[in-house]
Amino acid sequence: VVVRGELAFIQRLIERLPQPPPGQTWAGDDAAVLVEGRLLATDLLAEGIHFDLDWCEPADVGWKALAVNLSDLAAMGGTPEAAVVAVTVPDEGVADDLLDGLLECAERHRCPLVGGDTSSGDELVVAVSVSGTTKPPAPVLRSGALPGDTVFVTGPLGAAAAVLARLQAGEAVPPDEARPLLRPEPRLEEGRAAADEEASAMIDVSDGLALDLHRLCQASGVGARLEASAVPVAPGATLEQALGGGEDYELCFTGATGGIRIGEIVSSPEVLLDGEPLPPTGWEHAL
Amino acid sequence: VVVRGELAFIQRLIERLPQPPPGQTWAGDDAAVLVEGRLLATDLLAEGIHFDLDWCEPADVGWKALAVNLSDLAAMGGTPEAAVVAVTVPDEGVADDLLDGLLECAERHRCPLVGGDTSSGDELVVAVSVSGTTKPPAPVLRSGALPGDTVFVTGPLGAAAAVLARLQAGEAVPPDEARPLLRPEPRLEEGRAAADEEASAMIDVSDGLALDLHRLCQASGVGARLEASAVPVAPGATLEQALGGGEDYELCFTGATGGIRIGEIVSSPEVLLDGEPLPPTGWEHAL
Repeated sequence: VVVRGELAFIQRLIERLPQPPPGQTWAGDDAAVLVEGRLLATDLLAEGIHFDLDWCEPADVGWKALAVNLSDLAAMGGTPEAAVVAVTVPDEGVADDLLDGLLECAERHRCPLVGGDTSSGDELVVAVSVSGTTKPPAPVLRSGALPGDTVFVTGPLGAAAAVLARLQAGEAVPPDEARPLLRPEPRLEEGRAAADEEASAMIDVSDGLALDLHRLCQASGVGARLEASAVPVAPGATLEQALGGGEDYELCFTGATGGIRIGEIVSSPEVLLDGEPLPPTGWEHAL
Repeated sequence: VVVRGELAFIQRLIERLPQPPPGQTWAGDDAAVLVEGRLLATDLLAEGIHFDLDWCEPADVGWKALAVNLSDLAAMGGTPEAAVVAVTVPDEGVADDLLDGLLECAERHRCPLVGGDTSSGDELVVAVSVSGTTKPPAPVLRSGALPGDTVFVTGPLGAAAAVLARLQAGEAVPPDEARPLLRPEPRLEEGRAAADEEASAMIDVSDGLALDLHRLCQASGVGARLEASAVPVAPGATLEQALGGGEDYELCFTGATGGIRIGEIVSSPEVLLDGEPLPPTGWEHAL
């Protein structure tokens, strides 16, 4: 469930923005599209909402804060250019650990961290912003899906939710197994490949397949029919976690080839799973 | 005084970044310089550190959060392209008011707000990031000042500190008079004019002239001699506030024409005021 304030703020932002020039797309997609297909996006992680330092390290938070932004670029078919980070941190040790994870992710995904700002604060809040580039046929928007398009995802779903459930139950999950939740990998190559194959629409599965596919369908003015047996469920996860758990950071795209086929786009605006309505429920805040 | 955590985080970030490609400048200047002189910067405002909602409105915070980022672009001689905002907000009313101020500043300075992310949080934290463009001879770095260059500022200093002192003393300052603190104007035109005149170095006076001129001199490997009588003191402010108050968001630049002449660059690394050492003290956090 998305917090109410979030909906209000982003919805009002979208409503109140002036119309962008032709070819640009502002708020409402995974990243904003500026002139020449350049991308700009921001995403924040807040302690007590997105993570709990009882079950993750500041370095994990650093990694993830950048990774979720890179996932937004991936969902447009983009390539990272640079990142900046603004943080409130309770102490220097946390700041230094956070930086470890940020720089690790930056190096892994070739997105240099080029600047930052910081302030002391009781809670750790990490806001990363990224710029990126695209080349045609990218950027791929959420709004281009057409009836008849096949719906794909780039990998198994539910792993992050399954790990979160174990951590919240107090289990000591080994780092390797916790990786889908704590160190997600943005699907940059997969996103570019889908764009090259002229995907008609794309979104990252950050809040759960059900909710994010609803968003894609709503932006495109279409619906979708999914087959439950086709949804790739990660080992250790349930179908419910795969559909509604969120934080997997796989991509969902339509109308190209490649990926795992899970259903098709239809003109009627509902999203159906095996013929039954699939409600747009998604990621619950971790706390 | 800059908080210790801030120094640690930004300093370590600078130390640990890989070397940028030729022509690019990453952390350590007002904004990062990417390919083709494009700029990326981020700055955050945190409740209890940078502002107190007892003496300002969320809309003021919104305005200022964007304005201080635009000031970073101004200090490079840049032009704003787009902004994104990541916030933690305590409730919807605050979020909406914040957006009022952000959009007002965005329109005033022609920098569209193109996206955002938000989360609930006990305290208001606003992290804005901006992208910008430059054309040669911009971008102007902090590091190009040469002995013999004249030092200029773009306007009177100390107004923000004078207003802050009145607010902290419990005085009800009329909005028009509080504007230098609550609604600063980034000096974008002045920054571009200084760049066009081939300014050798530039910085924004966000933390006070003494501290920011020290930073410029340190980056350039030079010193400066200022004349106290030449420092433009804002009406109602003291010379001390003009030198160390901070948050004025005027620009300080060297080696061009235009602006108000306050001294000159020398090869010896000290910053002197009327022949006496000027300590690098600057902006104290508002609380």
